[in-house]
Amino acid sequence: MYKYHIKIEYDGSQFVGWQFQKNGISIQEILQKAISRYLKEKIKVIGSGRTDAGVHAVEQSAHFEIKNKIQDEAVFLNSINFSLSRYLVSVLDIKKRNKKFHARFSAKKRIYRYIIINRRAPIALKKNRVWHIQKDLNIKLMKKGAKILEGTHDFSTFRSSSCQSRSPIKTLDKVKIKRNKEKIEIIFSSKSFLQQQVRSMVGALKYLGEQKWSVKQFKKNFESKKRSNCAPPAPPYGLYLKKINY
Amino acid sequence: MYKYHIKIEYDGSQFVGWQFQKNGISIQEILQKAISRYLKEKIKVIGSGRTDAGVHAVEQSAHFEIKNKIQDEAVFLNSINFSLSRYLVSVLDIKKRNKKFHARFSAKKRIYRYIIINRRAPIALKKNRVWHIQKDLNIKLMKKGAKILEGTHDFSTFRSSSCQSRSPIKTLDKVKIKRNKEKIEIIFSSKSFLQQQVRSMVGALKYLGEQKWSVKQFKKNFESKKRSNCAPPAPPYGLYLKKINY
Repeated sequence: MYKYHIKIEYDGSQFVGWQFQKNGISIQEILQKAISRYLKEKIKVIGSGRTDAGVHAVEQSAHFEIKNKIQDEAVFLNSINFSLSRYLVSVLDIKKRNKKFHARFSAKKRIYRYIIINRRAPIALKKNRVWHIQKDLNIKLMKKGAKILEGTHDFSTFRSSSCQSRSPIKTLDKVKIKRNKEKIEIIFSSKSFLQQQVRSMVGALKYLGEQKWSVKQFKKNFESKKRSNCAPPAPPYGLYLKKINY
Repeated sequence: MYKYHIKIEYDGSQFVGWQFQKNGISIQEILQKAISRYLKEKIKVIGSGRTDAGVHAVEQSAHFEIKNKIQDEAVFLNSINFSLSRYLVSVLDIKKRNKKFHARFSAKKRIYRYIIINRRAPIALKKNRVWHIQKDLNIKLMKKGAKILEGTHDFSTFRSSSCQSRSPIKTLDKVKIKRNKEKIEIIFSSKSFLQQQVRSMVGALKYLGEQKWSVKQFKKNFESKKRSNCAPPAPPYGLYLKKINY
């Protein structure tokens, strides 16, 4: 068997999410079908992790195994991309890996980016690609919140009730908040995340920025480990899976 | 009479261009209608200049004159934006100006940005927002071309045959080319541009980058002042009117 690692860019708005689901089209499904058809062999595409419906990827990673080596990787990429051309999905790269490689379990770091546009006027150019927040956000307070989130904690407050992870304890390496005029970017990096963790944290940071919560309240809700104490999660269309490091 | 300056963001792909035309919807037309209806007074919106069909604006400028002062500018913006909400158009700002102000004739500098994604894989996330070029572009050569374009020249080679400007002589203050991995940004600033000048120059710079033209050929075609010696103009959807300085 040969193992291949692919990198994928996609616009999440057309899909029910990364993972195969009965109620609509997933990225995993269309990739699996396109690759199986091209290679004339039924393969399974394993992603680094799920992304929710509407969440985008600048560079998702996945792997698949096949019996026969791919003869020409450039031709493979062109053919797969051609067959995906009615979707906003692009396979960026393919590399042969050794047997031990696993898109999910070998991942050393996952990096997500969340984009907010903070202004009064509605969004024209980046509609459905950013979260539009009209109320002025206090970045200083949000940065204080970011510092509280960093490190090893029980993230139960920021975990979807349907999350299947065995433990709610995760180590968040870094939360970086950058403001450039009306644009606010929040970058999260961690070995792994709980379901809806990023969107839940962004929702809570927004409450801080709007001063609906004080820093004290933010910390208290985080430490309560109760999902019911979370702010509403940020919408999926502002979220980008940026990169998986192996 | 009172004069107002508005700034507008738009996605050009829905429109026949900035300027009123019989064969489709223009940004000028929908703004004029929305503002006239709101103010109950027939006004005319004068832009800083036209943008072609498909060209986007991060910040276009325009002005209009009215008999009665606008009482509440924030309410004005909310109302106009609400009535435009089915279009990808957003009025960012409104400011009262003195009688002498003219969106077109008072402009000191116009800044355009062109975005190219230079990679093999198709575009998913920025589809129809960038020019996708698969062949590797040589940035060094493109930068040499940019230097040749800077300054006061006869730009007839880079001028649409339907251009109505009296003179083909323009002063291009700066052409800046930045590369960040697969993304190439070209920024042009000038007091004013000829019709299709930016897209024509980008088309020619691309020929340089692909080494279809040598620097010598580029210079020769530019100096020939013949439209027929231009490369095909770059597509409109990679072009952004970035800002007008007054």
